[in-house]
Amino acid sequence: MERALAGNLAQSTIDTIRTLTLDAVEKANSGHPGAPMGLAPAACTLWTQFMRYDPDRPDWPGRDRFVLSCGHASMLLYSVLHLAGVREIGPDGQLTGEPAVSLEDIKQFRQLDSKTPGHPEYRHTTGVETTTGPLGQGCGNSVGMAIAGRWLDSRFSDAETSLFDYDVYNFCSDGDMMEGVASEAASLAGHLKLANLCWVYDNNTVTIEGHTPLAFSEDVAARFRAYGWNVQHVTDGNDCTAIADSFERFRKTRDAPTLIVLDTIIGFGSPLAGTSDAHSDAMGADAVAETKRTLGWPEDAKFLVPDGVADHFRGAMKKRAEALVEQWDRSAAALSRTDASLAAELDSLVSGKLPDGWQDDLPVFEADAKGMASRAASGDVLNAIAPQVPLLIGGSADLAPSTKTLLKSDDAGTLAPDKPGGRNMHFGVREHAMGAIANGMALCHLRPYTATFLVFSDYMRPPMRLAALMELPVIFVFTHDSIGVGEDGPTHQPIEQLAGLRAIPNMNVIRPADANETLEAWSIAMKLTRTPTSLIFSRQNLPTIDRKRYCAADGVEKGAYILADCEGLPELILMASGSEVSLCLEAHEALASDGVRSRVVSMPSWFLFEKQDDAYREKVLPRAVSARIAVEQAAPMGWDRYVGPDGGIIAMHGFGASAPAGELQKKFGFTVENICRKAKDLMKQTEDA
Amino acid sequence: MERALAGNLAQSTIDTIRTLTLDAVEKANSGHPGAPMGLAPAACTLWTQFMRYDPDRPDWPGRDRFVLSCGHASMLLYSVLHLAGVREIGPDGQLTGEPAVSLEDIKQFRQLDSKTPGHPEYRHTTGVETTTGPLGQGCGNSVGMAIAGRWLDSRFSDAETSLFDYDVYNFCSDGDMMEGVASEAASLAGHLKLANLCWVYDNNTVTIEGHTPLAFSEDVAARFRAYGWNVQHVTDGNDCTAIADSFERFRKTRDAPTLIVLDTIIGFGSPLAGTSDAHSDAMGADAVAETKRTLGWPEDAKFLVPDGVADHFRGAMKKRAEALVEQWDRSAAALSRTDASLAAELDSLVSGKLPDGWQDDLPVFEADAKGMASRAASGDVLNAIAPQVPLLIGGSADLAPSTKTLLKSDDAGTLAPDKPGGRNMHFGVREHAMGAIANGMALCHLRPYTATFLVFSDYMRPPMRLAALMELPVIFVFTHDSIGVGEDGPTHQPIEQLAGLRAIPNMNVIRPADANETLEAWSIAMKLTRTPTSLIFSRQNLPTIDRKRYCAADGVEKGAYILADCEGLPELILMASGSEVSLCLEAHEALASDGVRSRVVSMPSWFLFEKQDDAYREKVLPRAVSARIAVEQAAPMGWDRYVGPDGGIIAMHGFGASAPAGELQKKFGFTVENICRKAKDLMKQTEDA
Repeated sequence: MERALAGNLAQSTIDTIRTLTLDAVEKANSGHPGAPMGLAPAACTLWTQFMRYDPDRPDWPGRDRFVLSCGHASMLLYSVLHLAGVREIGPDGQLTGEPAVSLEDIKQFRQLDSKTPGHPEYRHTTGVETTTGPLGQGCGNSVGMAIAGRWLDSRFSDAETSLFDYDVYNFCSDGDMMEGVASEAASLAGHLKLANLCWVYDNNTVTIEGHTPLAFSEDVAARFRAYGWNVQHVTDGNDCTAIADSFERFRKTRDAPTLIVLDTIIGFGSPLAGTSDAHSDAMGADAVAETKRTLGWPEDAKFLVPDGVADHFRGAMKKRAEALVEQWDRSAAALSRTDASLAAELDSLVSGKLPDGWQDDLPVFEADAKGMASRAASGDVLNAIAPQVPLLIGGSADLAPSTKTLLKSDDAGTLAPDKPGGRNMHFGVREHAMGAIANGMALCHLRPYTATFLVFSDYMRPPMRLAALMELPVIFVFTHDSIGVGEDGPTHQPIEQLAGLRAIPNMNVIRPADANETLEAWSIAMKLTRTPTSLIFSRQNLPTIDRKRYCAADGVEKGAYILADCEGLPELILMASGSEVSLCLEAHEALASDGVRSRVVSMPSWFLFEKQDDAYREKVLPRAVSARIAVEQAAPMGWDRYVGPDGGIIAMHGFGASAPAGELQKKFGFTVENICRKAKDLMKQTEDA
Repeated sequence: MERALAGNLAQSTIDTIRTLTLDAVEKANSGHPGAPMGLAPAACTLWTQFMRYDPDRPDWPGRDRFVLSCGHASMLLYSVLHLAGVREIGPDGQLTGEPAVSLEDIKQFRQLDSKTPGHPEYRHTTGVETTTGPLGQGCGNSVGMAIAGRWLDSRFSDAETSLFDYDVYNFCSDGDMMEGVASEAASLAGHLKLANLCWVYDNNTVTIEGHTPLAFSEDVAARFRAYGWNVQHVTDGNDCTAIADSFERFRKTRDAPTLIVLDTIIGFGSPLAGTSDAHSDAMGADAVAETKRTLGWPEDAKFLVPDGVADHFRGAMKKRAEALVEQWDRSAAALSRTDASLAAELDSLVSGKLPDGWQDDLPVFEADAKGMASRAASGDVLNAIAPQVPLLIGGSADLAPSTKTLLKSDDAGTLAPDKPGGRNMHFGVREHAMGAIANGMALCHLRPYTATFLVFSDYMRPPMRLAALMELPVIFVFTHDSIGVGEDGPTHQPIEQLAGLRAIPNMNVIRPADANETLEAWSIAMKLTRTPTSLIFSRQNLPTIDRKRYCAADGVEKGAYILADCEGLPELILMASGSEVSLCLEAHEALASDGVRSRVVSMPSWFLFEKQDDAYREKVLPRAVSARIAVEQAAPMGWDRYVGPDGGIIAMHGFGASAPAGELQKKFGFTVENICRKAKDLMKQTEDA
C-alpha cells in the first residue's frame, strides 16, 4: 500500500502533509487543519521546486526565507520541515545531529515542551524564521526580511558574487489581508519595489465567522496593483503547474513585489471542505477516515509518511541547494582574501558581535543647567555609534526631524527603491508596519531601530511584543515622552504607555534623566543580544546633571542607582526617571537646606533594576527608609513596588491637557515646591505613625 | 479696507480661515498652519453649501457630521465653528448663550483651559464631533458614524420621514491614508456600501519628513476603487466650483462611500507653500506678513474677520438648516403620536438613559462546581440584555463563535450592505478599525460593543485610549484571557495586557471570577455613561461560586470585596481576579483545615476599588494583615499596591507556552498546592520578621 501511494510522488507528498495535519490535530484535539490542507500543493511546489534552502544548513545566510504569516497553519510548516529533513541547530548555534522536526515531534503537536507548539515559534524550532500567529505580523516581517536582503546584498555583493540575493516567500490568509499592518507593509513594499518578495494569498474565502463576503468584499488584486505590486491569480490551488508558473514569473519580475492570489479550498479532501468548520479544531475520527478514503490514503494509518516521499522532498531541495551553498562558501572565502574588513563584518553579521571600537566616538556631555532634550542627546549618540556599526539602520514613522533619529554621515543616505543600501529608512506614517518590518530586519542580521512619539507606541504594540517574545534586540526609540509635549495636548501626551511597555516580559524600557544617561542607555541597548529596548526620550530640555557633584551615569546599567545622597541613613528617598530626576535633585537640595536628609535615586530601567541581587536593591532602597516619593509624569501603576505602603507617588492620574509644558507641569504638581511639600507631609505622617 | 475685502465674500471667507490660522499659530508659537491653509476652500465650500447643520442647534441629532481626522489642522475647525457662530452647549446639555469658539478663544489657541486645544477635543469644545490627532482614528470614527446613521434611520424612519439620513464628512491627510486603521475602516465601509460617507483626502504630497514620494507612492484612488468606493479627483484645491461638483456627485451616489482626492498646496499663500516646513510650527512674523500681502490681506491686522464674512458663512448655513430642523422636530412630534414606544426610544437616545426594565430578564447562575466559561456566561447575559436595549449593537473581529458575542434573538440579524439595521456586526479581522468604528457609533447615540481575544487588545489600544479620553461608554469584550488559552501558545496568551489596560485613565477593566460576577460586570458596564469598560473573560470553565456559602457577587460594583472570610482578623489575605479566584477559595478551605485563618478577596476591578473610600478599602484589606498573596495569570505589575512589601504575587514572569491549559497552570504555579505552600512560607517569614 505504501508503495502504491508512492506511485505519484508529488501527489503523495501533498497528501502526506494533509494527513499528517489531520492526524496531529486529531491527536492534540486542537489546532487548525483547514489551511494546511488547502495550501499543501503550493507549499510542496515552492519547497521542492523553488526554495533555495539546504536542509543541512538551515542557518545558511543566503537561504530563501519562508514565512507563514497565517501561523495557525503551523502543521503545514512542521510537515515541510519534517519532509525536508531539516537538521536541528542547538542553542549554541551548532547542528545537534537531530532532526528539527521528527515524526515523534509531530505526534507531540501542541504538547508541553514539544518542538511543535500551536503557532510556530522562532528560536524554539529550527527552520521557523519568525514567530507568527497574530495576523498580519508575518507580512510585516517578510517586508523587513526583503529589505534586509537587498541591503545586505548591496553591502556584501559585487558584480561577480551575490551573497544575499535571497527571496522571501510569505504565505498569508484572508485575515492577514484584512489587518491594517499588512496593508501598511504592502504599501511600503510596493514603494520600495521589493522584487525579492512574494506573498501567496490563500484565498479560501472562509473565515471563522463564515465566508469572507460577510465582511470582506474588496478586490484584493486591484488593491495590490494600486500599491505597485505584480499580481497574479491562480484559480486552482491544486494545480501545481500553474502554481509553479506563478513562482517562475515572480522570479523573473525585477521591479516589484509579487502577490499570488491562490484560490484554494479550505480543508481540501475532507467532508468539511470549503466551510468555516474546517478552519479550526479536530474534525473527529469519522471525518478523518472519510478524508483518507477520499484522498486514497490507508484509512487506518496514522502519521504515515509513505516510502519515497521524504526522499523525494529532501532530494529535490538538496539537489538545488548544494551547488548554491558551495558557491556561497567560495564567495565568502574569496571575500576574506580581497577585503578582510568586509569579510570580518560578514562574520560578525552571523555572530551578532558588535565591531571592535564601536564605542570609541561616543560624546561626553558636560554639566549644563540649561542642558538639552534627551531626544537631542540621543541623536548625537546615535550618530556617534552608527559610523562604527554598519548594520545599525533604521528610521522613523514620518517624524525624523522630531525624533532626531536621522543618520547624518555621508554614507547614510535614504533607503529608496533604487538605493537599497541606504541607512535612513522612511517608514511613512505606518508605526505598526514599522515595528513588524524592524523585527524582520533583525531576523536577517541587521540591528534595526525605529522611532516615533511615545504615545504612538500604542500603534505598534503587537510587533513590540513579538520582538520581546522572539528575543530580538530591536531598538525602539520613543520621544515626546510626557506632558512635556505641551501644546499638542492629551492626544499626544503619553500617560499609560510607560507602564504598558514595562509590563511586557523581556522588554527593557529605559527612560534616561539627562544626556549622559542617554548615552548609557544607547550603549546598553546596543550590547543586548536577546532583548529589545524601548528608549524613552524627552521633547523638552533637561539639565545635564553635574556628575562631579553627583554620581556617575554608569549606574544606568543597574537600572537604578543612588544619584545624590546625604550623610548616614536618609530620612527620605526621592526616586524618579527621565525628566523628573532633575526635579528631584532640586528638591533634594532644597530639603537639605531645610535640614532634611534625603537621597535621590535615578531609576531609568525597572527591567535592569529587577535583575540586580537583593543586596544591591537593598543598598539603593533600604527597607529601613519608609518615607519615599516617586515622581513621574505618567500613570502611577507599578511605583507602589518601590515606594511601599507609606510612600507617595506624584504622577498623572488622568489625561493631560493642551498648554505650554511649563504650565502643565505646575498644573499637575511637577514642581520642586510640590515635591518638598509632599515630602514634609509624608515625613510628618511617618513620624506620627 | 475691511469692506474691500468683503467684495468677494467667498474668497474673503477662505482667506479669513487662512489668516486666523496663521495668527493663532504665531501667537501660540506652536501649531500646524499648513493644512488649514490648503483646505480652507474645501471647508468653506462644504460648510456654506452642503453641511446640514444648524449653528444654533449643534446637538440636533439629524445633523451632518464633520470629522477632522487630520486633527493637527485644528485651526481649520475652530475657524469654521467661529465663522458659523456655533452656540456653546454646557455640561448640562443646555445652550449657554456663549459662542462655541469666540475670537477670544482663537487668540487663546493652545493655552491652558482654553476652548481651542492643540487638537480638537470632544466634550471640550462644542461642535467637535470627535477627538482627533492620532492619525487614522477619525477615519475609523467616521465609518462608525455612517454605520450609526444608517442603523438609526432604519429604526426610526419610515417612507415619509427620514430622521437620520445625515451624511458624514471626513477630512483626512496623507498620514491618515498611510495608517492601517484607515485602510481597515475603508475596506469595511466599501463592503457596507456606506453611501452617506464622504472622505476628502488632502493630497498635498507633503509629510513631516519631506514629500510623500519618500515613502508613499501608491495609487490611492485605485486602492479605494478596489475597496468599492466612488472616487473623484479634484485637481485644484482652490477650485470651489469643482469642489462643489464633487460634493454634489457624492450626494447623488447611493451605493458606495465617496473619496474625493483633493490636490491642495500645503500652506497656500505663504512663502513656505508646498514644503514640509509649512506643516508645523509658527512661520515667523516675516512669513506671516508676506502671506497676508500675497492674499491681499491687511498686513498689520491680526485675527481679522472682515465685515460680512461671518454673516455670509452663518447665513448660508442657517438658510439651509432651518427648514430641515423644523421638519425634523415635526417628524419627531409625529412619531410620538403614532408610536409612543419608538418616540420614547428616540428620547432616550438623546438622553442616553437605559430603557426601564432593561435588567428584567437577567439570568441567575446556580452554584456549580463544573461551572462555565465566563465568555459563555457573558454570551448569556448579553443575550438577556440585548432584547431590552435596542441600541446595544456590536460584534467581533471574526471571532464571534469564540467570544460568544453573537446576538441570537430573531430581530438581531447581520448588519449588511442591504440590512443596515442588523445588530450583529462582522468587523472582519480588523481589530483596530473595530475600536475606532465603535467610538464613532458611540458618538452617534448607539451603545456599541466589540469583541476579540484579550491578547489582540494590543491591536486596538489607540481607539481604546480615545474612548477613555472622550468618555465614551463603549464596551470592549475580551475573551481567552490568560494561559488558560492552552495549546494556542504564547502568541495567543495575554500576559501584559491586563496591566496595560488597567493603566489607561478612565478605563474600567473588569475580570469576573464566575458567571454571577460576569452578570454584575455587564450590568455595571451598561450603567456607565462616561467610562468605557473592558470586560475580561475566560476561555475555560470556571466554577460558579456558591453564593450562599460565600458572599454575594454584587460586591463587584465596589471593585473588590470579601468573598470568603474567617473568624476574627485573618492571618492571611488571598486576593485574585477572574479564574484565579476559585483557586484561592480552594486554597482558603485547604488552609482552614490546616488551622490557618485566611480571607479571600475577589478583585475584579481595580478601577472601581480605587473609587471607594478609605474605610471600605481598609475593611477589605486591613493594614494590620501584612501576609497577603495575589494570584493572577498575568504580569505582576500593579499588584504590589495591594499586597505590600511583605506580600507575595503568584503571576506570570515571562511568556506562556503551548500545551493543554491544565498542564500550563501546573507549570506556572497556579495550583492550590502552590498557593498553600507560598502562604505558609509567607506567614513563617512574617512571624520570623
